[in-house]
Amino acid sequence: MTTTRHKLFTPGPTPIPEQVMHLMNESIIHHRGHEFSRIFSRVSQDLKYLFQTEYDVLTLTTSGTGGMEAVVANLLCRSDRVLTVNAGKFGARWADICRAYGVDFIEIEKQWGHAVHPDEIVDYLKQYPKIKAVFLTHNETSTGVTIDLKSISEAIHANSDALVVVDCISAIGGIPLKMDAWNLDVVITASQKGLMLPPGLAFVALNDRGWKAAAKSDLPKFYLSLKAARDSLKKDSTPFTPATTIIRGLEAALSMIKEKTLERLWFEHQVFGDAVRAAIRALGLSLLSRQPSNALTAVIVPEQLSCKAIISGLEQNFGIIVSGGQGHLKDKIFRIGHIGFYDISDIIGIISALEIVLKSSGWQFEIGAGICSAQQILQQLSVRKQS
Amino acid sequence: MTTTRHKLFTPGPTPIPEQVMHLMNESIIHHRGHEFSRIFSRVSQDLKYLFQTEYDVLTLTTSGTGGMEAVVANLLCRSDRVLTVNAGKFGARWADICRAYGVDFIEIEKQWGHAVHPDEIVDYLKQYPKIKAVFLTHNETSTGVTIDLKSISEAIHANSDALVVVDCISAIGGIPLKMDAWNLDVVITASQKGLMLPPGLAFVALNDRGWKAAAKSDLPKFYLSLKAARDSLKKDSTPFTPATTIIRGLEAALSMIKEKTLERLWFEHQVFGDAVRAAIRALGLSLLSRQPSNALTAVIVPEQLSCKAIISGLEQNFGIIVSGGQGHLKDKIFRIGHIGFYDISDIIGIISALEIVLKSSGWQFEIGAGICSAQQILQQLSVRKQS
Repeated sequence: MTTTRHKLFTPGPTPIPEQVMHLMNESIIHHRGHEFSRIFSRVSQDLKYLFQTEYDVLTLTTSGTGGMEAVVANLLCRSDRVLTVNAGKFGARWADICRAYGVDFIEIEKQWGHAVHPDEIVDYLKQYPKIKAVFLTHNETSTGVTIDLKSISEAIHANSDALVVVDCISAIGGIPLKMDAWNLDVVITASQKGLMLPPGLAFVALNDRGWKAAAKSDLPKFYLSLKAARDSLKKDSTPFTPATTIIRGLEAALSMIKEKTLERLWFEHQVFGDAVRAAIRALGLSLLSRQPSNALTAVIVPEQLSCKAIISGLEQNFGIIVSGGQGHLKDKIFRIGHIGFYDISDIIGIISALEIVLKSSGWQFEIGAGICSAQQILQQLSVRKQS
Repeated sequence: MTTTRHKLFTPGPTPIPEQVMHLMNESIIHHRGHEFSRIFSRVSQDLKYLFQTEYDVLTLTTSGTGGMEAVVANLLCRSDRVLTVNAGKFGARWADICRAYGVDFIEIEKQWGHAVHPDEIVDYLKQYPKIKAVFLTHNETSTGVTIDLKSISEAIHANSDALVVVDCISAIGGIPLKMDAWNLDVVITASQKGLMLPPGLAFVALNDRGWKAAAKSDLPKFYLSLKAARDSLKKDSTPFTPATTIIRGLEAALSMIKEKTLERLWFEHQVFGDAVRAAIRALGLSLLSRQPSNALTAVIVPEQLSCKAIISGLEQNFGIIVSGGQGHLKDKIFRIGHIGFYDISDIIGIISALEIVLKSSGWQFEIGAGICSAQQILQQLSVRKQS
């Protein structure tokens, strides 16, 4: 037990708003009753707003990887070949799943921290014309990189018949996404990031092209069957017992998102991302990402400093939890999450705490440099609000 | 909004104790931090007590069916043939999953409400000697039947090399289960019944024979990989983001179970089951089950009465939610769940409410007959406590 308030600044799970907690805390309801049907019908509608789509958004009781696997298992055939992009741990996961199902894949390997360019994908599509689908990662959580999804989708469709499949798990709700307008064939996300919920739900939407491919799929699936989920959704239900408490929280979370509007959320996340990046630079540190994300910021730890000491200093002094690096970036970077339920005091607070920890580690900079740089950026929030 | 307290008497989900709710309601923690590791290590130990096993109990973020599918996908090969028992909706699900994976299965079909006998299974094993595994349902939720698992397991092992795989989803915590002592090779359960938690977690344990079969399996799996779950468990972790809030609740639920002891829980469920059955008979109604379960009671609705009217009468007058029948038993039976967090006032209360609803439907019986019969049985609780 500690008297310090603990707060997550991890790129998922993220803090849960009180009103979401309250709804999840009400007496448990039965998933085959009227009340659940009403809730499930409403959240399924509101998820279309979140995805910016007219197509059904399906809810699975799994975490994000279960949603990714559902897409592979439901969309593809044993004989298919697909294209994946490995620019971080979660891009690599698409290939891992394909491998598990015996699906042939070509993997574009990018240095971690870099973003794939539309032209690179087009080059591969020309070289391998039978590619059935391109598997992308909108926001790579392991590196803090956001791809230019709109341009990439346009380039793929202009040059091939390949389906565009996107893992938007750590992007949705914070980074602009327009499934229908951008012609994305399949979009996947999960509950524990921009949706401000505990982990345990994944969400998947397919457009007509996606469903057409799914109709031919011959890979095995049962619990992850998207057709079963779609058939049940028509009756405002799920094929298997769903995570009812998280779905209740989802109702509140989506109401909050609708009330604030996606446009305002995207803008706030842009400002928060800019503010954190400005602060990091002002403190003399570097970003890992060449195309930085507004969902999280990956900071390179200089050789003179200890990554572990920074992370534990934030936790022990201020109850602030940030993430370390994954894979070969372990002990080389730390990652500050800022997608989800964050406000101005969170953003200025994490920078203030980071300054103090860096100073006590012996890093040279003028105290206050980070928060002052961030503050210059944060002004935009008010300008916009009053206009 | 209503002023009537709603209470589930459904065979899952079941009511959630306040102390479990409180833990789930604490600030969200990160699944890669020390606190989660501590919790996960502890619950993984306590799950062994629940399963009565020395083997690892793995936690998956899915509902129960995901756990069942994980077992099929991890244990079997494409060329295997297995035996399943269809004596209700959940027994039939084993065959559905095998079909989805292209695994050959022989299905024993039983009339719903009946229990499979050990000799029947042995007959099939003799007729089809290459059966790799027998897939069982400890407690069939759709019919309220509990099989004699100990005798069946003994009979299988005495007559074949087949693995004994058991869905204990609606039994564990309420009906005696001893994985190691009864030589069960694979046991599956889920969070939302005897464990008194919201839906969203499944649990799977394999003994050495189970893991030996799993090492040879060639069916595709990734999110549901039990090997990945076991490898992560060695580091007190999970391969993918787990449903952290439910796992926190699990810590409290398992503490409650340990404090009360499984023996006392099994005894209380036996008494509650006996009491409900005595009441049903005293009211002139019949049970569907020939081998009735202490987890739930399936009541046949006489032709003169309306099943829907009974179910909605309980809800509208008393806020009590019971379940109807599934499949061909829809509108023919209703099911009262009594596994999980129920006490004497719940049990006597549901019978009292049922009497009043039946009376107002015109059913003939002496008012009070049900609760008096139940009361005779409920006395045992005190006798035992004072001895």
